[in-house]
Amino acid sequence: TRIGVVEAIWGEHKTIEQISEILKKYQLECETALVTRLTKEKGQKLLVEFPSAEFHEISGCLTLGEFKECTSSKEEVIILTGGTSDVGVASEAEIALNFHGIKTKLLIDVGVAGLHRLLDRIEEIKLSKVVIACAGMEGALPTVLAGLIPQPIIGLPISVGYGISGGGKTALEGMLASCAPGLVVVNIDNGYGAAMAAMRILST
Amino acid sequence: TRIGVVEAIWGEHKTIEQISEILKKYQLECETALVTRLTKEKGQKLLVEFPSAEFHEISGCLTLGEFKECTSSKEEVIILTGGTSDVGVASEAEIALNFHGIKTKLLIDVGVAGLHRLLDRIEEIKLSKVVIACAGMEGALPTVLAGLIPQPIIGLPISVGYGISGGGKTALEGMLASCAPGLVVVNIDNGYGAAMAAMRILST
Amino acid sequence: TRIGVVEAIWGEHKTIEQISEILKKYQLECETALVTRLTKEKGQKLLVEFPSAEFHEISGCLTLGEFKECTSSKEEVIILTGGTSDVGVASEAEIALNFHGIKTKLLIDVGVAGLHRLLDRIEEIKLSKVVIACAGMEGALPTVLAGLIPQPIIGLPISVGYGISGGGKTALEGMLASCAPGLVVVNIDNGYGAAMAAMRILST
Amino acid sequence: TRIGVVEAIWGEHKTIEQISEILKKYQLECETALVTRLTKEKGQKLLVEFPSAEFHEISGCLTLGEFKECTSSKEEVIILTGGTSDVGVASEAEIALNFHGIKTKLLIDVGVAGLHRLLDRIEEIKLSKVVIACAGMEGALPTVLAGLIPQPIIGLPISVGYGISGGGKTALEGMLASCAPGLVVVNIDNGYGAAMAAMRILST
Amino acid sequence: TRIGVVEAIWGEHKTIEQISEILKKYQLECETALVTRLTKEKGQKLLVEFPSAEFHEISGCLTLGEFKECTSSKEEVIILTGGTSDVGVASEAEIALNFHGIKTKLLIDVGVAGLHRLLDRIEEIKLSKVVIACAGMEGALPTVLAGLIPQPIIGLPISVGYGISGGGKTALEGMLASCAPGLVVVNIDNGYGAAMAAMRILST
Amino acid sequence: TRIGVVEAIWGEHKTIEQISEILKKYQLECETALVTRLTKEKGQKLLVEFPSAEFHEISGCLTLGEFKECTSSKEEVIILTGGTSDVGVASEAEIALNFHGIKTKLLIDVGVAGLHRLLDRIEEIKLSKVVIACAGMEGALPTVLAGLIPQPIIGLPISVGYGISGGGKTALEGMLASCAPGLVVVNIDNGYGAAMAAMRILST
Amino acid sequence: TRIGVVEAIWGEHKTIEQISEILKKYQLECETALVTRLTKEKGQKLLVEFPSAEFHEISGCLTLGEFKECTSSKEEVIILTGGTSDVGVASEAEIALNFHGIKTKLLIDVGVAGLHRLLDRIEEIKLSKVVIACAGMEGALPTVLAGLIPQPIIGLPISVGYGISGGGKTALEGMLASCAPGLVVVNIDNGYGAAMAAMRILST
Amino acid sequence: TRIGVVEAIWGEHKTIEQISEILKKYQLECETALVTRLTKEKGQKLLVEFPSAEFHEISGCLTLGEFKECTSSKEEVIILTGGTSDVGVASEAEIALNFHGIKTKLLIDVGVAGLHRLLDRIEEIKLSKVVIACAGMEGALPTVLAGLIPQPIIGLPISVGYGISGGGKTALEGMLASCAPGLVVVNIDNGYGAAMAAMRILST
Ligand SMILES: Nc1ncnc2c1ncn2[C@@H]1O[C@H](COP(=O)(O)O)[C@@H](O)[C@H]1O
Ligand SMILES: Nc1ncnc2c1ncn2[C@@H]1O[C@H](COP(=O)(O)O)[C@@H](O)[C@H]1O
Ligand SMILES: Nc1ncnc2c1ncn2[C@@H]1O[C@H](COP(=O)(O)O)[C@@H](O)[C@H]1O
Ligand SMILES: Nc1ncnc2c1ncn2[C@@H]1O[C@H](COP(=O)(O)O)[C@@H](O)[C@H]1O
Ligand SMILES: [Mg+2]
Ligand SMILES: [Mg+2]
Ligand SMILES: [Mg+2]
Ligand SMILES: [Mg+2]
Ligand SMILES: [Mg+2]
Ligand SMILES: [Mg+2]
Ligand SMILES: [Mg+2]
Ligand SMILES: [Mg+2]
Repeated sequence: TRIGVVEAIWGEHKTIEQISEILKKYQLECETALVTRLTKEKGQKLLVEFPSAEFHEISGCLTLGEFKECTSSKEEVIILTGGTSDVGVASEAEIALNFHGIKTKLLIDVGVAGLHRLLDRIEEIKLSKVVIACAGMEGALPTVLAGLIPQPIIGLPISVGYGISGGGKTALEGMLASCAPGLVVVNIDNGYGAAMAAMRILST
Repeated sequence: TRIGVVEAIWGEHKTIEQISEILKKYQLECETALVTRLTKEKGQKLLVEFPSAEFHEISGCLTLGEFKECTSSKEEVIILTGGTSDVGVASEAEIALNFHGIKTKLLIDVGVAGLHRLLDRIEEIKLSKVVIACAGMEGALPTVLAGLIPQPIIGLPISVGYGISGGGKTALEGMLASCAPGLVVVNIDNGYGAAMAAMRILST
Repeated sequence: TRIGVVEAIWGEHKTIEQISEILKKYQLECETALVTRLTKEKGQKLLVEFPSAEFHEISGCLTLGEFKECTSSKEEVIILTGGTSDVGVASEAEIALNFHGIKTKLLIDVGVAGLHRLLDRIEEIKLSKVVIACAGMEGALPTVLAGLIPQPIIGLPISVGYGISGGGKTALEGMLASCAPGLVVVNIDNGYGAAMAAMRILST
Repeated sequence: TRIGVVEAIWGEHKTIEQISEILKKYQLECETALVTRLTKEKGQKLLVEFPSAEFHEISGCLTLGEFKECTSSKEEVIILTGGTSDVGVASEAEIALNFHGIKTKLLIDVGVAGLHRLLDRIEEIKLSKVVIACAGMEGALPTVLAGLIPQPIIGLPISVGYGISGGGKTALEGMLASCAPGLVVVNIDNGYGAAMAAMRILST
Repeated sequence: TRIGVVEAIWGEHKTIEQISEILKKYQLECETALVTRLTKEKGQKLLVEFPSAEFHEISGCLTLGEFKECTSSKEEVIILTGGTSDVGVASEAEIALNFHGIKTKLLIDVGVAGLHRLLDRIEEIKLSKVVIACAGMEGALPTVLAGLIPQPIIGLPISVGYGISGGGKTALEGMLASCAPGLVVVNIDNGYGAAMAAMRILST
Repeated sequence: TRIGVVEAIWGEHKTIEQISEILKKYQLECETALVTRLTKEKGQKLLVEFPSAEFHEISGCLTLGEFKECTSSKEEVIILTGGTSDVGVASEAEIALNFHGIKTKLLIDVGVAGLHRLLDRIEEIKLSKVVIACAGMEGALPTVLAGLIPQPIIGLPISVGYGISGGGKTALEGMLASCAPGLVVVNIDNGYGAAMAAMRILST
Repeated sequence: TRIGVVEAIWGEHKTIEQISEILKKYQLECETALVTRLTKEKGQKLLVEFPSAEFHEISGCLTLGEFKECTSSKEEVIILTGGTSDVGVASEAEIALNFHGIKTKLLIDVGVAGLHRLLDRIEEIKLSKVVIACAGMEGALPTVLAGLIPQPIIGLPISVGYGISGGGKTALEGMLASCAPGLVVVNIDNGYGAAMAAMRILST
Repeated sequence: TRIGVVEAIWGEHKTIEQISEILKKYQLECETALVTRLTKEKGQKLLVEFPSAEFHEISGCLTLGEFKECTSSKEEVIILTGGTSDVGVASEAEIALNFHGIKTKLLIDVGVAGLHRLLDRIEEIKLSKVVIACAGMEGALPTVLAGLIPQPIIGLPISVGYGISGGGKTALEGMLASCAPGLVVVNIDNGYGAAMAAMRILST
């Protein structure tokens, strides 16, 4: 919280016991909490112990405590995805932002293989302050976007693919290698990190 | 020649002596020859020994014997490049095709970071039978193209880049991982191979 | 469909709910659909919801709507595999082509470790317009083939192997590195992509 | 310029002739230009042809035309480096920003192996709007920084190191893997890209 | 035992039968034994056969025979972890040391993203003879530590992370690439190895 | 010599001074010596100091002392190469064998892209006791060969190629992944090692 | 069989149906068969259909038909393993050799971390004609051995390890990189391949 | 100096100007200095400017100011190398230790391919307090050593090798993967780091 963000608890490599112990400490100090990367099973078990919490199945996030109120009237961050398979991670970014009171909009399935779908939405996209662009496979979406709009664009590579693109490394490296100027990138599937980067930008 | 192509001699890892010995054999059998991947220095030394040959500096190719006559009246293969730095390899593909009597057209600097430049030429590109799309860095050009035109597209990754994109592997993997259907790929900087693939396709 | 192909839905990283939602949209618009990379379990659950669909177990494909009628009298595309383990991916390519009305023939177990089996079929192979050559392990099949026939050959690396060849990367890189001129390659296990590449070629 | 930035010409893989041809076109259109990644030799040869240009040796950049005037009275972007060896790339970022009229400050040698040097400057760093943190070897500087300040931090990995850290990949991956929230990253040695990202952020 | 350590049995790739056969041999010779990397299931099955053994669930270790008595009055080795997820491996190191009669202390959650937590404990850490610093993700903890204290520090990379940091390779390489002088490193998750290295050092 | 071979001195990473010091020791003890991986420059400088030595330029080997006499009347080892570029390494293997008194035969340019050239020589190849098969690029030659003959075949990958095949790793991995039974492999460009393996086999 | 070996059927990526179909063909032709890399479950299902077959659980091999009779009176091939975890693969090599009538001996747990255990057996090892040396982790066993005995040594890397040694690649590369002359290597876990290589050698 | 060591200046990626500026600052403050990884050319140019400095050619180190006096009467650190090619890096470690007043001994050419040479020296090696074991290629030396002696052993991988072992990564990974307990490792060619680790150990 020293840098103004709700501490997120990374749930993937922790046992239920470890997570629940940490959450109890937060509750005692009346702090809100965000747990990420939970399986459905883990999420539901935690709900039993923390009935006031909310489990967000698509993103695998659990929130404890109220979402901060949105102050802006329109979306500040637009989150784009190349395909339907990217929705889980995009959703993690969305919840992390909404939890901090940032209004978001999610545009699904605007990948570069069907360029017109992206071009059709470009004016709408230009109205946001920050863009998070999710893409798996070759990860070309943020590159194309960065040539079309002047806003900050955060490339969010997704571990969706197979063969050479399995695990998301090709998407990650494609974004880093981008010929479009000023694209920044976060780790594969790091929806929370992309959200926090957007928050840092919004507070400048 | 069993499969109908002029045998190319790969010049990069051969000494002048090795190449010249092979060329002499070809001359004796009155065959034309194409040597690829020569430095300027090597090319010029070979010209001294084979004054009737031609050295094509940009592509590093040397041709011995006449180019086959073009029979078609318009370009059958269009070769696109993302940037000026890709011209050397694009040129290797062009010479290999021209040498076999295939008419080509080269469109430089239509990379995806400035999408309009590509969209402006799209109708012209659609008139060709086969497209060779060269790109370094993240290699997104053939992916975007494959969503726009129905022709065969050969992705030709270029070893232009630095850091994560140095050596062309990111471009190669980006093309292989492409979310656009039916894109095929050859080895990094393999202009000759892309040309031979185009020839195979044209003869179907 | 802008480029003339049935839109394929990549089923691997999507939930049943996501796939079924997409299929309903297609049904409403009376479009045929092809879903790839489904487990048996996912396929059977979708059949319950879409009883008119067909699930092709070996390839993990589901088709909704009629296969286009074949117009040609003989096979246009021959699909070769090095071994029995490659049949699943080869079958994905076959169904994708058949669904678009392209006649195919599948030749199994003609790998290079028993060269005579390949040489015995070579005249038959030469009658096709396009060849898709599947191989796992070291992936040498398309290289050997490309030295024997003048047709377009699409190398399709298969994720069959172990140790150094596990996951198909060695097969992929072997095909890209091929010393045979004009071989083109698609991503590991990308049967659908190889089929779409063949279709692009057939329509030139 | 469509997205409001001076087009940079990537000089590394271009010949003098190619660069000079592009610069002439810019001059004709009275546009300013920035060429990056030039060797001293290339830079000096271009100066002969373009005497009004400036060559910035440390960064390997050449600028043609006037720097935009700075409007802000204090530094908007602070650029930090872990060691003296990172100065070249840091300088590329600085020139790219100054050329667009953004005021910058460079803090050298504040790497994490001597933590106190960083902690001593932390209040000063907090006054900037955006931070670019350069680091080679293990690249831990931006991670430590991201735990200390709430501003946007752009991690800029440097190809300084040897053995496992040679080429900058370890620094890059360390930044992407960072346990600190909201750190964004650009390609290895991509000073220009980090600068353009900062500009995008400043204009929100 | 030739070099003075209790032989550890690496349990991960062995069957219950293989492990139990080895343990019986040890029992016959009245030697104590340490088995590492056991799943809970394997551990419990072995307890049935060896009721006098102890299974340490968090670390996945099984010990047979008495722990050596501690002779020193204060902790000789301090084991630090960046986060809660690193506790399993840290615990393997701790048990291996305690089993040999070395007193240890475990400090959890002193990662570099919250630097103050580390700085708050630094005087305490300086009292130990050897430090084992566990970290996953970017693995920066031992680097920062090595700039602050003069003791031997053993970097112990943890396979905790995802995307680029999945499997622990980024943490490992970050520690090896460290700009801090005199940091040494062991294999990913090698708690036992780090403990044995500490023992070698303590006996100098 | 404990295992019956002439000690080879690996010349690549040694200075002239280091090599010459080692050779003098050998001379004193009247032992013959073989130095490998010398540049032409290094080789010639050593000749000045050791006028009785022989420098073999193609292979970069220097021999000091007499070659052992051949006792067998026909070639025991056949060395095959895929192309002319592989001759240097093939020659290192040949000299190492000849130096130990083993008769060899070198067959150049029998790569798999022109299968008939290999098939034409197959009866001749079958007469040898051991085969060393050199190949760069995709390295398929030993795989095809291993399906045709029953002898021991040593795959010798060559660092000839570019892009994905640059440095020889693709050839190496292709040989290891081979679907042909009983092929063994040595390190890239390790002509000396392949020769010593052949010697071990011949002495069984 | 063209090269004199029983055709092995690689069972890992094949379904029960595929394997059983192949085995029936062999039975019809009265040929013996060897299936490798079967899980216990697959093996037992096949036994139901082929009651005359034998399933070898430790190695995951199934044999159909009689083992060839051993003609030699003493072991021709010695198979060494660094540890107990390597026994499965070592056993695959052993069965493949025994099935062809070659007598073998298996020496377990002679890894280099306890050098004396290896040195104690060295005279016995020297009596064999060919040695197969299995090792996981760093894979140093065959290197040490190759400096001690003059026989052909086949390095067989094992996928036993974790962290950097997980999957066996470190063992493989360590063997290829060996400073000991004339060591040859096969793919990770390729017990069958090592056996076939030994057979090729024995028949010279 | 906060942690008691002479600050080393890493010379490789710095210009003469940068190094000389840093050295002047040290001189002013009457501190001794150690510069590492200098080419002969750079070293000699610096000697002109700093005539009181010493340049150590084999190791590429430059020292400014007096070596600390040795207080111990016998060698505290023994540095072993597998071959002659490893001497440069071994020497960097030696100078760094001697400069701090630590007595060392260098044993060259005791690699594992000739095991007896190592075994002959083992009693002598056991007399030291810390061992630094340098090895290139497969890097097995420290593994074998760690099974023979109880002291702290620092594995120092060397970038000596070719093909798969080129650059030192195989040696590094082999040491990390070691089956011998308690071996610790530093970055490839990091002689200085190994020395500083030894110093940390000696001061416990
Ligand atoms: N620039 C090139 N890129 C890819 N392949 C090539 C190139 N030049 C020649 N080749 C092919 O490489 C093969 C090996 O060539 P060579 O070593 O000259 O026998 C020839 O059969 C050519 O088809
Ligand atoms: N040093 C640099 N690092 C990263 N990108 C750059 C650099 N210099 C130029 N660029 C970008 O690279 C793209 C390709 O440049 P060009 O090949 O000159 O057309 C340009 O659009 C620039 O935005
Ligand atoms: N060209 C080569 N390739 C592979 N190994 C070699 C080569 N030349 C020498 N060797 C081996 O490398 C080992 C190390 O050599 P050295 O560094 O000279 O002691 C020797 O024992 C040789 O057996
Ligand atoms: N040869 C070397 N290998 C490893 N680290 C070094 C070497 N030389 C200097 N260093 C360390 O690298 C750090 C960065 O050095 P510098 O860039 O000179 O500030 C210093 O703190 C030294 O401890
Ligand atoms: Mg996508
Ligand atoms: Mg490009
Ligand atoms: Mg296959
Ligand atoms: Mg740094
Ligand atoms: Mg951590
Ligand atoms: Mg070859
Ligand atoms: Mg082992
Ligand atoms: Mg060595």
